[in-house]
Amino acid sequence: MAWFENVSKIKYEGPKSNNPLAFKFYNPEEIINGKSMEEYLRYGIAYWHTFTEDLSDPFGTGTAIRNWDKYDGMDRAKARVEAAFEFFEKIGAKYYCFHDVDIAPEGNTLSETYQNIDTIVAMLKDYQKDSGVKLLWNTANNFTNPRFVHGAASSNNADVFAYAAAKVKKGLEVGKELGAENYVFWGGREGYETLLNTDLKLEQDNLARFFQMAVDYAKEIGFDAQFLIEPKPKEPTTHQYDFDAQSTHGFLLNYGLQDHFKLNLEANHATLAGHTFEHELRYARVNGILGSVDANQGDPLLGWDTDEFPTDLYSTTLAMYEIIKNGGLGAGGLNFDAKVRRGSFEQDDLFHAHIAGMDAFALGYRVANKLIEDKVLENVVDDRYASYKEGIGKDIVEGKADFKSLEEHALSLKEVKNKSGRLEVIKATINQYLANAYAE
Amino acid sequence: MAWFENVSKIKYEGPKSNNPLAFKFYNPEEIINGKSMEEYLRYGIAYWHTFTEDLSDPFGTGTAIRNWDKYDGMDRAKARVEAAFEFFEKIGAKYYCFHDVDIAPEGNTLSETYQNIDTIVAMLKDYQKDSGVKLLWNTANNFTNPRFVHGAASSNNADVFAYAAAKVKKGLEVGKELGAENYVFWGGREGYETLLNTDLKLEQDNLARFFQMAVDYAKEIGFDAQFLIEPKPKEPTTHQYDFDAQSTHGFLLNYGLQDHFKLNLEANHATLAGHTFEHELRYARVNGILGSVDANQGDPLLGWDTDEFPTDLYSTTLAMYEIIKNGGLGAGGLNFDAKVRRGSFEQDDLFHAHIAGMDAFALGYRVANKLIEDKVLENVVDDRYASYKEGIGKDIVEGKADFKSLEEHALSLKEVKNKSGRLEVIKATINQYLANAYAE
Amino acid sequence: MAWFENVSKIKYEGPKSNNPLAFKFYNPEEIINGKSMEEYLRYGIAYWHTFTEDLSDPFGTGTAIRNWDKYDGMDRAKARVEAAFEFFEKIGAKYYCFHDVDIAPEGNTLSETYQNIDTIVAMLKDYQKDSGVKLLWNTANNFTNPRFVHGAASSNNADVFAYAAAKVKKGLEVGKELGAENYVFWGGREGYETLLNTDLKLEQDNLARFFQMAVDYAKEIGFDAQFLIEPKPKEPTTHQYDFDAQSTHGFLLNYGLQDHFKLNLEANHATLAGHTFEHELRYARVNGILGSVDANQGDPLLGWDTDEFPTDLYSTTLAMYEIIKNGGLGAGGLNFDAKVRRGSFEQDDLFHAHIAGMDAFALGYRVANKLIEDKVLENVVDDRYASYKEGIGKDIVEGKADFKSLEEHALSLKEVKNKSGRLEVIKATINQYLANAYAE
Amino acid sequence: MAWFENVSKIKYEGPKSNNPLAFKFYNPEEIINGKSMEEYLRYGIAYWHTFTEDLSDPFGTGTAIRNWDKYDGMDRAKARVEAAFEFFEKIGAKYYCFHDVDIAPEGNTLSETYQNIDTIVAMLKDYQKDSGVKLLWNTANNFTNPRFVHGAASSNNADVFAYAAAKVKKGLEVGKELGAENYVFWGGREGYETLLNTDLKLEQDNLARFFQMAVDYAKEIGFDAQFLIEPKPKEPTTHQYDFDAQSTHGFLLNYGLQDHFKLNLEANHATLAGHTFEHELRYARVNGILGSVDANQGDPLLGWDTDEFPTDLYSTTLAMYEIIKNGGLGAGGLNFDAKVRRGSFEQDDLFHAHIAGMDAFALGYRVANKLIEDKVLENVVDDRYASYKEGIGKDIVEGKADFKSLEEHALSLKEVKNKSGRLEVIKATINQYLANAYAE
Repeated sequence: MAWFENVSKIKYEGPKSNNPLAFKFYNPEEIINGKSMEEYLRYGIAYWHTFTEDLSDPFGTGTAIRNWDKYDGMDRAKARVEAAFEFFEKIGAKYYCFHDVDIAPEGNTLSETYQNIDTIVAMLKDYQKDSGVKLLWNTANNFTNPRFVHGAASSNNADVFAYAAAKVKKGLEVGKELGAENYVFWGGREGYETLLNTDLKLEQDNLARFFQMAVDYAKEIGFDAQFLIEPKPKEPTTHQYDFDAQSTHGFLLNYGLQDHFKLNLEANHATLAGHTFEHELRYARVNGILGSVDANQGDPLLGWDTDEFPTDLYSTTLAMYEIIKNGGLGAGGLNFDAKVRRGSFEQDDLFHAHIAGMDAFALGYRVANKLIEDKVLENVVDDRYASYKEGIGKDIVEGKADFKSLEEHALSLKEVKNKSGRLEVIKATINQYLANAYAE
Repeated sequence: MAWFENVSKIKYEGPKSNNPLAFKFYNPEEIINGKSMEEYLRYGIAYWHTFTEDLSDPFGTGTAIRNWDKYDGMDRAKARVEAAFEFFEKIGAKYYCFHDVDIAPEGNTLSETYQNIDTIVAMLKDYQKDSGVKLLWNTANNFTNPRFVHGAASSNNADVFAYAAAKVKKGLEVGKELGAENYVFWGGREGYETLLNTDLKLEQDNLARFFQMAVDYAKEIGFDAQFLIEPKPKEPTTHQYDFDAQSTHGFLLNYGLQDHFKLNLEANHATLAGHTFEHELRYARVNGILGSVDANQGDPLLGWDTDEFPTDLYSTTLAMYEIIKNGGLGAGGLNFDAKVRRGSFEQDDLFHAHIAGMDAFALGYRVANKLIEDKVLENVVDDRYASYKEGIGKDIVEGKADFKSLEEHALSLKEVKNKSGRLEVIKATINQYLANAYAE
Repeated sequence: MAWFENVSKIKYEGPKSNNPLAFKFYNPEEIINGKSMEEYLRYGIAYWHTFTEDLSDPFGTGTAIRNWDKYDGMDRAKARVEAAFEFFEKIGAKYYCFHDVDIAPEGNTLSETYQNIDTIVAMLKDYQKDSGVKLLWNTANNFTNPRFVHGAASSNNADVFAYAAAKVKKGLEVGKELGAENYVFWGGREGYETLLNTDLKLEQDNLARFFQMAVDYAKEIGFDAQFLIEPKPKEPTTHQYDFDAQSTHGFLLNYGLQDHFKLNLEANHATLAGHTFEHELRYARVNGILGSVDANQGDPLLGWDTDEFPTDLYSTTLAMYEIIKNGGLGAGGLNFDAKVRRGSFEQDDLFHAHIAGMDAFALGYRVANKLIEDKVLENVVDDRYASYKEGIGKDIVEGKADFKSLEEHALSLKEVKNKSGRLEVIKATINQYLANAYAE
Repeated sequence: MAWFENVSKIKYEGPKSNNPLAFKFYNPEEIINGKSMEEYLRYGIAYWHTFTEDLSDPFGTGTAIRNWDKYDGMDRAKARVEAAFEFFEKIGAKYYCFHDVDIAPEGNTLSETYQNIDTIVAMLKDYQKDSGVKLLWNTANNFTNPRFVHGAASSNNADVFAYAAAKVKKGLEVGKELGAENYVFWGGREGYETLLNTDLKLEQDNLARFFQMAVDYAKEIGFDAQFLIEPKPKEPTTHQYDFDAQSTHGFLLNYGLQDHFKLNLEANHATLAGHTFEHELRYARVNGILGSVDANQGDPLLGWDTDEFPTDLYSTTLAMYEIIKNGGLGAGGLNFDAKVRRGSFEQDDLFHAHIAGMDAFALGYRVANKLIEDKVLENVVDDRYASYKEGIGKDIVEGKADFKSLEEHALSLKEVKNKSGRLEVIKATINQYLANAYAE
């Protein structure tokens, strides 16, 4: 059965195409630096936003028109699997991601929930095999159910900790069963609403214990996916523990977990934390913990997670710049953790929006790659930091300087001479690369 | 004498040029819609940021290297005039803007200040005549001097009100003398630090009285420039009275001043007020009060006025879209109320930065014009609002409907049917227009 | 039947009471300035937050435990009425507020919705009569249902405009039937998600037409409640038309509606717009449009509407200061548009939270009243603005000054002398008033 | 000579005093928990804000009237020392803090700068001895001078690194000479304006090298003050490396510096980073790195560092709560890194503002102490986390649980039962403690 009858497989038609159901910039087969775009970009579809989301918001019920909503319960879950794989095939995505509750409804008991999951996982496994689509990552939703009102691994209630552990245990087993390349931890309720009733130390200790148990269990069952923590500063809680890339890195170092985790970085979470997306990517890259990307964007004038499809070419270009400099994302990918706007409630909008996002990242990739080929930023940096390649600068970097030798050097200087950082030229140059992306 | 010896007149070299001292997108002579770019875009140079600014910030003294800084007092003021007109000619700007204190130092008394101004104004008049460069607008700086600590027209001190009035009176005379096309009011200190010691009603009444006196005096002396108010929500004060476009419009309506003022809208002030730049422009446009533009940009992650040179092509495209739909800016123009970054302290950076800004607006203009030619957004809007062109919708618009007829209509409806807003498609289309700006 | 079995009528026990189910600061019968606290403060209970809200958030389903949730549909609606009036009586509130959908479920058709409303309204009328509790205001919820996805009065779809009109028409009739003292318009969807597909002029014109029709219909049926517009800048939409007090005032003036509307001001909406609550109240007060108050508070570090119960004594003190200076709220009141936190999900929390809010406003009232009795701020203001009571200042205020006389005055000044604004002293003084509220 | 002629020593006059030049809440000799307030609170005066600051802002020149400004250069520096110690004595502060450039002007060469410093340090040493006032901490200003435009220890210019090192070397020597109890590092320029021209890895590595060299040199000269890093997220740079408490902790752990540094936490920096002040204090406290406090406050509606004197009693109460739970601040103190408002430009305002701040912290201390005595929050926490003291919770905490035992437990649960977090009750209780601070 066709769930998206009026949409055919999306094809690349080039930058001038007027066909809204065609790619303009994403050409899956185009080779850049020895790899096809498809192979390099590793686009993933977020099951929750695309197949489960109803487009409700805090002031309105759902607007989404989805033709699998005529079913209920497990029937709907099965219909979603069919729709999902039809969507993957038509949009040309080779990866997908899900939370446990996205794929199967919770049962009345945990056992029943397990059974529901098992049923759908078996189905997903078949579909994966037939289609070649892979599971980029899975995760456990330990935030939606009221039981997680005070946290999951950081709940004040030990029963909830246990419940969350059971769900992650199952998630690791499911990940293994489906060959997931990564396993993600997003601590939506791991934080606090107020410090006034919170034992922050115990909560953070428990969170660390939880992560360690997950590492141990994965090892025990031989599940070797990359573990990823996804930082977010706030929302739904007032303050979340995995605030941003550097805080999360600090957490890992503080608890000796740094060898087992990388980061899954989301653009919108970066801006909520007061950072650019490229800052988060850069921090993770230079510290060896850039794992995967949640490709979306926020609205800088709104203070909540809008999870818009990424269309800002500056952001996709600078994100791809970091990813290329990282040597790609390894086991990670570009998961569209993005939802159509509440006003884009028709089923075809799912295609339109993914095309917009895939095209924006493809164009960003093209531009970033050209910038790197031409060493635009590399030359700027080499020139700016040249003083560390000789003399006192070299001594500093090589550990041969101390405050006394540095003072001696400083006292000998007539004058310190700096050079302009030339930011405006660099920004203008990036605009040229954007505008010339397809110029002859 | 040449103040910018190593820079020649900036020429258009096309989008692929590698010459940092050339235009890539701004081709002054190119005709779009029957007007040359130069004629349409009416670029203005901000005297303060380009010739007076020292690039200090709250944590650091000035870094700017300017070769007129070897002089002091009136000698420096005169050197700046020479440098300014050399700069205008080399960058190819036909307009400039200034505050009184930018062009001439304050004297020990108001009379002395007047004399200093008169000296420089005479010089400017000659230079204008020789160069053909015009004064887009002038204004009085009623915020820097400590006397304005508690406000100018809204000061609690009537002497300060008088002092501010005298400065604006002189400004109007100077504007007339130099043929200024507009006169601007930016109320940097017209607001409050705290409500706790503030008589908000008296302050707003006095501000309105001040505006009315300015209108009266301009009429008296036959100065027919367009009067412009420049909204800004906060900074330096905690809360400014001309918060944003709609508030300022409300203020004008509240005090019966609406026929005498339009708005001078700044991108960075828009974002500080929680709006997009295009929102402010749109509001002003559809209410007939779009006067002129301060072309710059802010950093959405920083909470102060960064006054960066505009390089975001989304913003310049949407700004130019509003301006074209407005039929141009009339007497207004695009004034680069933007400063080079503190790290871009060399004199050549002034050229680099203006090139970046002029190119960004030129490219935005090109793209916006193409969008309008192709009716990209117009078709979307026509289609979306079609229901107001017939039936009950037409009745509403024509004033023929009331709650009873509308209820009757509503009761007769089986179901209300909406259509997707297709935001993602529109955003993707704009990306196509950007990427195809120079594609063959 | 008792819906809140384990709670008795809340009594005043004084500031030292350890009883969580007692008032510490709110003493309904205490006379201040010739009126009882109860009479002056006019506390209202928000039906939606207290009886309908399930405490879901964007990442979690509802946590609220409410014993009327064992029923469904109209049975639940009726149970809520019983619970509500029991709650009003026990908490000691004399007013309440509701949206149409709070009190009765929507039917399958508009007619059926009307019937549901009529049934409950009849019940409410009886309960009002028996209890003496009054309807502070009612309103129509034109934002939750998917039909309002693109707006209500500002929808691009004329059918939706009609539907919204029918709902407001019914709301006016209900208001008349129940003797509502005010009728509120909150335009939750009256704004846009993006300007790119929006006809802002038509939308604002239509919104004005809608308001005029409401005015006309109320007149027609003899419903003489005060009409109130409730500003909010954003959320759920990206940008709402009634952004803040001054913008909304501007809108009213622009469309000639200023005689028919006052404002219902909410603390959290103020902060989302970048204002303090007291700013919004002050602006409305001095312009004669302060109608009513939605008493809550936001979290300044979170960018969404948290609608917390008001507990910040600075905010309640300064709010009550404005209200006292306004001569009270007239037909308006202090409606607790506030919800218990998601973690405060037990039924008793509804009492705890309202006690917290009522106590905070009562203490704020006490402190504000004392500040005014002692002329703390009045003396500061009188002294600061003394220069407008004589000489050139008096001329300015009386319209006898012009730029020429002011210049003459300015030229005659040796030096402008300002005095310190003494903000730190004022803040310290307010702290004294807070700490001494109950000191002997 | 008396620099503050019309102010006598500030005395405690109790909460009802009308004397603006008296303490109302700060009673230096009052014993709380076995220590005098003076001994416990360790108030420090910030030399820069109180004796150097001119109250300029980005749009205005300085307004401060200071009677030592009649002198210049070293004469002014000496006059400031006299004024400072007179101020310390009159306000009753036992500690002060400075940057090198606050106490002595920079010379034309580094050597000359050293000489200037030496002259003033000798004078300070005498004054310290005579007065008993101690140096809480000193630091090097490596941000104001244009040479630091691109950073200090993280500059792209090795000469600047050397210059910064020389200044810190001198600072350590000065600290030793004056018996400083701490030495502070605030990286005002240690960050970037744009990632586009920044080698983030090299810059962070160099920053770590710089810290290590400082540690080594202090050891070498036997200077055993506590080293403190002061986090700030942004301003003056776009992004600073010591973003907040947890990031800075992460940085220390990442570079093996964690044993040598604690944090100097500032309220306004916390809010700029998106945290409450108490969050930063709590994080530092439970991780053993709470060193000292910069006592001020920001304006939550403004996006820059306003450095206001602390008057918010909620904030001072919760800050003191953390400090008491920390067992005090050890070698640290409460430094008023706060400046009078630009409108509070008279010399007496320096007293008024410090009185406001000292009173606010004293009252916060009193309230926090009472909250702890009564175990208000402790009882809440003990009750909420009780499940970790037995059964599965105890197993988790003691490391005896794993995912398998937890799953077994979860499967055995009928239902997870949570209890309300009662946030509203807690907030209302804190209001009671505030209002009852002096009630009989």
